[in-house]
Amino acid sequence: MARTTGSHSDITGPRVRAAALRLFAAGGYAAVSMRAIAAEVGVQAGALYNYTPDKQSLLFDLMQGHMTDLLAETPSDPTRPAMQQLQDFVAFHIRFHADRPDEVFIAYMELRNLTPENFAVIEGLRREYEDRLETILRTGVENGYFAVADPKIVTLAIIAMLTGVNTWYRAGGRLSLDEVVAQYWDMVRKAVTV
Amino acid sequence: MARTTGSHSDITGPRVRAAALRLFAAGGYAAVSMRAIAAEVGVQAGALYNYTPDKQSLLFDLMQGHMTDLLAETPSDPTRPAMQQLQDFVAFHIRFHADRPDEVFIAYMELRNLTPENFAVIEGLRREYEDRLETILRTGVENGYFAVADPKIVTLAIIAMLTGVNTWYRAGGRLSLDEVVAQYWDMVRKAVTV
Repeated sequence: MARTTGSHSDITGPRVRAAALRLFAAGGYAAVSMRAIAAEVGVQAGALYNYTPDKQSLLFDLMQGHMTDLLAETPSDPTRPAMQQLQDFVAFHIRFHADRPDEVFIAYMELRNLTPENFAVIEGLRREYEDRLETILRTGVENGYFAVADPKIVTLAIIAMLTGVNTWYRAGGRLSLDEVVAQYWDMVRKAVTV
Repeated sequence: MARTTGSHSDITGPRVRAAALRLFAAGGYAAVSMRAIAAEVGVQAGALYNYTPDKQSLLFDLMQGHMTDLLAETPSDPTRPAMQQLQDFVAFHIRFHADRPDEVFIAYMELRNLTPENFAVIEGLRREYEDRLETILRTGVENGYFAVADPKIVTLAIIAMLTGVNTWYRAGGRLSLDEVVAQYWDMVRKAVTV
């Protein structure tokens, strides 16, 4: 008999994660039970433990997956001028996060519900992402294109400003995402130059 | 017999709100019971209902109190040049929010747990605060000091950037709050000028 593509676990794993993501974002990690996640997936509560050892692992998997996708997709071409690298970063950050409102909400809100070990891993990935932007800023300062007194602070300020788009942007609203990206790039460009 | 200052209710009300704030911030609104709040205050669960009709009212009171304090304390002097008004706003916003990490966290995180009626009230107060900054930006544009294509978007971007300080600033860290304010003012000033 031909083996079908994807085992039962391959198919159910993503469904379990998608259900957990929806429920955590809507009601909060602490208020969601494994039973509720099983019901959302359409399996028995006991069957859920074939796919994940516990709720903490589900939360960690979601947050780690979000951060590793982010790091994998971040544009990174050190041969481009720092100004272009910064523009690429700004456009990427806004688009990546606008596409994933639930993941972004959970990444901020549920940090407090991670175990200390899991928190340390997520925090490390977050710093790795921040370091990408900080490196662009430092390169631009060294090459004389940027006027930035404290690249670390400017990194955190830019990331907060860009992620803030998620609190108000809705597809089909007054501005297209292209227009939003253009407006934010204008602010970031001016903020880092003289 | 001399009447003591403050009735029983005057004294307990703030303690109930403080306990609810701590517990909501630590565990999330959905996971906190009225019984847990009563235990934190040190009263019987039944006694709590002398001070608040229900948990939703407590959440709404906390969020409404935070926003009305914010609006009452926002510097507002239309006789000052727009550039100075903007500088005052930036310094105020960072300091006010850095002083209230739990209130700020809840204001963002628990919006989804407000009833539609309560959400509309909090959203209205939030827009009122945003309008204060937008008015400063529009005045500066009219007077030729600011170069801002879309004052609404720049308002939201500045507020997100400034509130982001709360995610990393710790008293006693590398930078004093004065230094943080100076760095952010430098970025905002450049972002809104030519």
